[in-house]
Amino acid sequence: MKAEIITIGDEILIGQIVDTNSAWMAQQLNLHGIEVYQVTSVHDNQVHILKALADAEMNADLVLITGGLGPTKDDITKKCLCEFFNTELVFHSEVLEHVQSLLTSRNVAINQMNRDQALLPANCTVLHNSAGTAAGMWFERNGTIFISMPGVPFEMEAVMTEEVFPRLVKMGITQVIVHKTVLTIGLPESMLAEKIEGWESALPDFIRLAYLPSPLMVRLRLSAYGLDQALLEAQIEKQVRDLLILIPENVFGFDDDNLGLVIGRILIESSQTLAVAESCTGGNIAHYLTFNPGSSDYFKGGVVAYSNEIKNKLLNVPIEIIQEFGAVSQQVAEAMAQGARKVLRTDYSLSTTGIAGPDGGTDEKPVGTVWISVAGPSGVKSKKYIFKHNRERNIIRTSQTALNLLRTFILNEKSQSR
Amino acid sequence: MKAEIITIGDEILIGQIVDTNSAWMAQQLNLHGIEVYQVTSVHDNQVHILKALADAEMNADLVLITGGLGPTKDDITKKCLCEFFNTELVFHSEVLEHVQSLLTSRNVAINQMNRDQALLPANCTVLHNSAGTAAGMWFERNGTIFISMPGVPFEMEAVMTEEVFPRLVKMGITQVIVHKTVLTIGLPESMLAEKIEGWESALPDFIRLAYLPSPLMVRLRLSAYGLDQALLEAQIEKQVRDLLILIPENVFGFDDDNLGLVIGRILIESSQTLAVAESCTGGNIAHYLTFNPGSSDYFKGGVVAYSNEIKNKLLNVPIEIIQEFGAVSQQVAEAMAQGARKVLRTDYSLSTTGIAGPDGGTDEKPVGTVWISVAGPSGVKSKKYIFKHNRERNIIRTSQTALNLLRTFILNEKSQSR
Repeated sequence: MKAEIITIGDEILIGQIVDTNSAWMAQQLNLHGIEVYQVTSVHDNQVHILKALADAEMNADLVLITGGLGPTKDDITKKCLCEFFNTELVFHSEVLEHVQSLLTSRNVAINQMNRDQALLPANCTVLHNSAGTAAGMWFERNGTIFISMPGVPFEMEAVMTEEVFPRLVKMGITQVIVHKTVLTIGLPESMLAEKIEGWESALPDFIRLAYLPSPLMVRLRLSAYGLDQALLEAQIEKQVRDLLILIPENVFGFDDDNLGLVIGRILIESSQTLAVAESCTGGNIAHYLTFNPGSSDYFKGGVVAYSNEIKNKLLNVPIEIIQEFGAVSQQVAEAMAQGARKVLRTDYSLSTTGIAGPDGGTDEKPVGTVWISVAGPSGVKSKKYIFKHNRERNIIRTSQTALNLLRTFILNEKSQSR
Repeated sequence: MKAEIITIGDEILIGQIVDTNSAWMAQQLNLHGIEVYQVTSVHDNQVHILKALADAEMNADLVLITGGLGPTKDDITKKCLCEFFNTELVFHSEVLEHVQSLLTSRNVAINQMNRDQALLPANCTVLHNSAGTAAGMWFERNGTIFISMPGVPFEMEAVMTEEVFPRLVKMGITQVIVHKTVLTIGLPESMLAEKIEGWESALPDFIRLAYLPSPLMVRLRLSAYGLDQALLEAQIEKQVRDLLILIPENVFGFDDDNLGLVIGRILIESSQTLAVAESCTGGNIAHYLTFNPGSSDYFKGGVVAYSNEIKNKLLNVPIEIIQEFGAVSQQVAEAMAQGARKVLRTDYSLSTTGIAGPDGGTDEKPVGTVWISVAGPSGVKSKKYIFKHNRERNIIRTSQTALNLLRTFILNEKSQSR
């Protein structure tokens, strides 16, 4: 079954709102095994809406329409639907009763515009809108289902959840689709693609792979299409296991994970703690960690040591080391990590020192030069990087790379102590 | 001139990402006086992409296409464009040079997939992508302009800003538009609208106002349309002056300003310094400050005091105060701010302590309860807030509110010392 989504409303086409309805519906339809063929956003304009409906009827078995059902003049979807199905508006007393009771509960007096919301096309099945006054509508013609819903997100979601999906399930309209997203770090998209090329070309036809790169990571989304949910899940798991053998250091989690969450899970399991000492990342690593609920269970805090004075005073980095090797050096990075671990009394610590840019670079240490250190019970480990982006991306890349260095460092310590 | 936007990518149609590109492009096109007729999102599928291109050619004078230009196998846009324009891929040495220099600067070895990014349709004008390896393309046929761009938002934005709009302006497709965005904080959209209602209704016809609320602030965008750039600029400046009289405490900057930048400008002018002591904001305020280039000129650093132990050990907050009043209290917030100012030896300091959620709330101190303190040469000032959002928004709101409290505190001190 192929679906098409039509969103109606000028506010989308002038960029005033971001169309989150489509993403929500597409996600839900996919979860129910219904593939979305196209999303089309059109103006509050009769000719345009009618053309979109006619196009959709040719392409899709299920057409989901949102928007243009409010009580005001610019909402013309019902008029267009009457024209499209060659029918007229008729009065639905049960809809008026619902509108009336809803307005009464909000202490609003009913007016003619509200009463008109009970006028709906004669050929539709009314879909109850528990969250608002604009009813949903269900039409069928020549094997295609058309569903019209309000554009207010929580009203659309109520109609979809309470009215649309139960009907679709009852009608037996489902292909199963199973998704799994593998989160990778440390390899740019092209190098990653090269490394897993053989695995990718050996994927069975019913599994599709998509690369989703962002400044934070490269996500690999696997989608399996078929009839048997358990079989598809098993197939996806098998492919993921094979992938893990190819890039074990680069896969750090799945689906909605992030590096802070993954590190937190490892440390909480062993009741261990973490501190950070940040120079060039300026608090961003602490933010990535504390953004996750429950981070106080393992994260004790940190020092943003932007000046050398703070590095010395709060982290006990010897002034002589800073003078001899410079603030951006292996020696200072290691002293920061070890200082944070000692002063904040944690099991692990992480430090960054570098030149985020745009100024401050030299021939020897250009903008983007970064030293990262991690310290733990077994000692300290450091690594130098040269990121060549703008300030914002250098900070993001340094933060993510540091967290991944910490993750592999902790995992190595744990596997060696076993 | 009518535009149509086509976004290509399975990730949109399975709802994995929200299509923010369309909203950004629609907004920018509208600001330049170009109406967007339709937005269409299609699969990574050749037949489907070709149909969308053919439909768009019939409806629009300007077709903007994003997505499907990456180096991997699922990216087929270039192949489709060749088919559509009945042409073939040819090698562009200047694109290869750019890809090479970009990869070299990132310490990535070039591979065949990267090299293939220099293969572009023979009939296109190449649009330089300063932010990535996938070049943009400009085509013209029978009076319709087609522009293909990468789907990564910051790459698309770079190509639009640096290549597409300058060409459209040179072709005389847009009238003169002058924008100025006023940044406000501390008033929700509805209260702000009420306060400036009289000013808003008195705006002349050729100036349009848009409210752009976000978790960080409410931006007011003024757009003046006409023929004379200097006249429009003068008119906008006059309106902004009138607005400042109405909401002097709430306007903190203009256009691309942020609170950190504004605070930095004030402190650098008087050679003064700042430190932060963060509990519930967990490093986010330090991140907001250090995100700006040159922040090391006034920001010495800070302590992320997530645990009470750190509050005591690094900021000298007496354990007795924490035990008597609790970590989320005026007393602890003030001791943190004063401790940070003293330990880090700065002119000003800022502290936060609160319950970001989702857990940790009590009847007396529900989730969202926050104490913020600022300290300076003249003493300390504190304020309590109760934010009622999720964890992420509570952290953002607390950070921005704290920075604005600091800003007005510093400005008050300076005006009193004059």
